[in-house]
Amino acid sequence: MKKMVLVRHGQSEWNFTNQFTGWVDVDLSEQGVAEAKKAGDKIKEAGIEFDVAYTSVLKRAIKTCHYVLETSDQLWVPETKSWRLNERHYGALQGLNKKETAEKYGADQVQLWRRSYDTLPPMMDPDDESSPLQDRRYANLQKRTIPMGENLKVTLNRVIPFWEDHIAPSLLIGETVLIAAHGNSLRALVKYVEEIADEDIMEVEIPTGQPLVYELNDDLTISKKYYL
Amino acid sequence: MKKMVLVRHGQSEWNFTNQFTGWVDVDLSEQGVAEAKKAGDKIKEAGIEFDVAYTSVLKRAIKTCHYVLETSDQLWVPETKSWRLNERHYGALQGLNKKETAEKYGADQVQLWRRSYDTLPPMMDPDDESSPLQDRRYANLQKRTIPMGENLKVTLNRVIPFWEDHIAPSLLIGETVLIAAHGNSLRALVKYVEEIADEDIMEVEIPTGQPLVYELNDDLTISKKYYL
Repeated sequence: MKKMVLVRHGQSEWNFTNQFTGWVDVDLSEQGVAEAKKAGDKIKEAGIEFDVAYTSVLKRAIKTCHYVLETSDQLWVPETKSWRLNERHYGALQGLNKKETAEKYGADQVQLWRRSYDTLPPMMDPDDESSPLQDRRYANLQKRTIPMGENLKVTLNRVIPFWEDHIAPSLLIGETVLIAAHGNSLRALVKYVEEIADEDIMEVEIPTGQPLVYELNDDLTISKKYYL
Repeated sequence: MKKMVLVRHGQSEWNFTNQFTGWVDVDLSEQGVAEAKKAGDKIKEAGIEFDVAYTSVLKRAIKTCHYVLETSDQLWVPETKSWRLNERHYGALQGLNKKETAEKYGADQVQLWRRSYDTLPPMMDPDDESSPLQDRRYANLQKRTIPMGENLKVTLNRVIPFWEDHIAPSLLIGETVLIAAHGNSLRALVKYVEEIADEDIMEVEIPTGQPLVYELNDDLTISKKYYL
């Protein structure tokens, strides 16, 4: 039986301030660290042994990956980081307080940006100093590849090539896979793997720090799904 | 100018107990963690930006690598772990207290094991429960590849293929490289890169937690060498 475990990173420092985070490289809070370690404890108790780990290029996911591996005593497992597993890019909303945003644009509009599968947020100015175009970690990507704002549909379209080229091949050769990532990059994966409809996916919420285990058949269809 | 930075991990939990460590996967002590973070601070101050990081499959080096990258705000840098960067395997001496070993085998013999380039320690029993043959992280190596005890010469012979296949190619394409590893795997690298004679290398001591910077010419000969 093939096995894949998803872990959504826990609380970040911007949870306190209730800001849109997206691609901003915010650290885990103390509680977020504790959540990651607890996820590792559960994985250890369940006796899950990874062959490979995948994460994003954002430190809240990378550190979650490291705490999970360390706590389950397998920090030596090979790890690959990719921008394709990053959180949804929230465009010009990044850094804004959610309450202030609702006051500025109206609660209905904000709800639409947060809960619609294919409504784009206002795009970030490419010249913004917090733009990924100014960030060395994306320097090996062509400019047109780097998003300035995403809905879940766009997020899914850049996550799935990573599934196809890395995660699925690992599973197909029998490797047990850890994926430590974000609310929306994991939602995109879950949508694809479970074939969830566009109109239903935004209701799907993956809890933070709860390892979500998929046991998969040889063709990567789902045999079993459960939280540890 | 090509650039490579070596960081030897700091104090481990077995420094207190004065035991031969080798391939035993001992954690960093609190002081070791502080040393790694300080190394990261120095790298940040020096403005060194890595493109790739290499480390061993032992947690005291991996965690040093992570603390260095995190403290210098580049935790997203791709990282490769390899058994080839592991500490020298100390054979049957692993786990023994250094003082007790001197009492048992004589101080001269222990000095020879520690300070001779090509004297092998007593080999570990392959059936020993702490043998790497019982360890999942080496399961993809053929049994005959896995050492049961090494001198520096043997260590060097397994480190250098990693230099040839990974580190040197990274440098040759212009990448700035971090290597977080161990006293003897780094000594082997330094011997090779600096072409130090067999009879002189055991005198070379790389201090823990002090980033050692090499600036290299196009053919990877040394232009400059300094500690941060």
